[in-house]
Amino acid sequence: MLKNSAEVDKIKEEVKNRAKVVNTIINSYLELKDPKVLYRAVRHLIDAGGKRLRPVLCLISAEAIKEDWNRILPAAAAIEIIHNFTLIHDDIMDKDLMRRGVPTVHTAFDESTAILAGDTLFAKAFEIIIDCDVNPKYLTKAIKMLADVCIRICEGQYLDISFEKRKYITEKEYFEMIEKKTAHLIAASCALPAVLFGKSDKLVNALWNFGLFSGIGFQIHDDILDLIGRDKIGKDWGSDIVEGKKTLIMIKAQDMGVEIDIFGKKRATEKEIENAVKKLLECGAIDYARNKAKEFIEKAKKELKILEESKAKTLLTQIAEYLVTREY
Amino acid sequence: MLKNSAEVDKIKEEVKNRAKVVNTIINSYLELKDPKVLYRAVRHLIDAGGKRLRPVLCLISAEAIKEDWNRILPAAAAIEIIHNFTLIHDDIMDKDLMRRGVPTVHTAFDESTAILAGDTLFAKAFEIIIDCDVNPKYLTKAIKMLADVCIRICEGQYLDISFEKRKYITEKEYFEMIEKKTAHLIAASCALPAVLFGKSDKLVNALWNFGLFSGIGFQIHDDILDLIGRDKIGKDWGSDIVEGKKTLIMIKAQDMGVEIDIFGKKRATEKEIENAVKKLLECGAIDYARNKAKEFIEKAKKELKILEESKAKTLLTQIAEYLVTREY
Repeated sequence: MLKNSAEVDKIKEEVKNRAKVVNTIINSYLELKDPKVLYRAVRHLIDAGGKRLRPVLCLISAEAIKEDWNRILPAAAAIEIIHNFTLIHDDIMDKDLMRRGVPTVHTAFDESTAILAGDTLFAKAFEIIIDCDVNPKYLTKAIKMLADVCIRICEGQYLDISFEKRKYITEKEYFEMIEKKTAHLIAASCALPAVLFGKSDKLVNALWNFGLFSGIGFQIHDDILDLIGRDKIGKDWGSDIVEGKKTLIMIKAQDMGVEIDIFGKKRATEKEIENAVKKLLECGAIDYARNKAKEFIEKAKKELKILEESKAKTLLTQIAEYLVTREY
Repeated sequence: MLKNSAEVDKIKEEVKNRAKVVNTIINSYLELKDPKVLYRAVRHLIDAGGKRLRPVLCLISAEAIKEDWNRILPAAAAIEIIHNFTLIHDDIMDKDLMRRGVPTVHTAFDESTAILAGDTLFAKAFEIIIDCDVNPKYLTKAIKMLADVCIRICEGQYLDISFEKRKYITEKEYFEMIEKKTAHLIAASCALPAVLFGKSDKLVNALWNFGLFSGIGFQIHDDILDLIGRDKIGKDWGSDIVEGKKTLIMIKAQDMGVEIDIFGKKRATEKEIENAVKKLLECGAIDYARNKAKEFIEKAKKELKILEESKAKTLLTQIAEYLVTREY
């Protein structure tokens, strides 16, 4: 695991450098044209920042298989654009007010504009990816993978919403949901370079699994941050509890018979959220989730054995570890 | 122009035969799997029927360029699926209750499920089109064309909504809106076979323009049907008036100083709608639109000069004419 904060800073620096490249290409693709308000809505969330984790993983995966990521930069941009599209639509459904420290798109504009901004980004992703400088045969395979992942994301979001209405969710159901909603896009981010450059199925699968397991760990950790990240996460603190989201933490607490009275109550005071978090910490549910997240990262790292040693391979390992130790 | 009702029946028969093929392939792609409710929502509008105009035009265009449409059936399915996705999202934004004689998806299910059903269909279209049995180089060109059209559809829908808030819209603005919202997808339906089979730009453009002009005529006629189609259209009668939609008819009436008091009033009695339609007929605004629609169909037909004579070419001509004479 990551040794010290200097190491973490170095990883962040590596991510940031590549994120800059990603931002430049995204900006070049999302010009502010007519109808201006629509395109302001299209750019709103992307301009608000974000770590660009997925496209950066895509670039580093290309490096790890010794290929030039300049040829597949549009695919990296497409991945980030799809991620943002899903966030915009999710925020409408979840009625979330803040994201990345700014009002959500449907809050800053209106719901119709937010639906359309999401749809525009979605279409844009498939328009952009065509610009990859690779064999069209591999490109069509990559498009199929990406479209398939988008379908899974919809299924995952549907499950997430439907879980809110149900009293009891099993861990198995939870894992199916986060795999689809979150982990598959991260898996695709890591696997797409291998697909685009026509590598073996074995290599594609290993990178897919690396991303999949990392993505599961990432999502579990994200649920933890919703409870303990507070001022750092840039969105509503404890929103998962008040919205009644069935996170691994809540499922574990429920299994242990721990009652959280504000769960699913739609609103709660800061003090009430504080008390709920305290209870979840004391009963061990948060630690349980933390350990699960780490287990998945260990599984993810094992998948990288297929790769030759390289700076990029080390970086992938370190990022996976960072995903479950980060504070925001 | 179409001579008699026997001729119209024959065209309908030709369309219906091909629509059956399209339905079979769509059904094979949209199986009812888990999560079941989401996939029921995904299928809801498609199962409610519809003329399958766009995919049928796609198949006939393939015939007209002497190619086997069996190889591009997935593209035809993708076009219809994209059309349905846009309708589902549009109905949410327009708060429409009925479509094709059944409750709209957000009415039959809920808004979140409708957003996700639309997103799922959107992704599905790009997954499906990959199955076309053509050169991947041409396939990627077709995907780019389709993605680009989807962006235009979003822009067109945005313009349509934004027009409701504005007092005066020019004819030029109206035409830009319907081109993007409606005509580009019909243009793509006609041009995609030529793209997929690697035909010349000249042929692609001619078929695109045929579809574009037909699509414009189609939309103008659709606006007329909203007013005079009444029980036949399967959606709310006169909804364009009460919703304040700036159709060519309303723009013309406004230009002539004809006041429609229920315009944009969100609700009106049957009697009030009847009176409004009578006024629009008497002032000549509906006739004006009818003539414009016919002009565009004549322009469309001229584009087909590039094609050799064939049964398919004649059928394209007849369908274009039917688009502006149909009663629903």
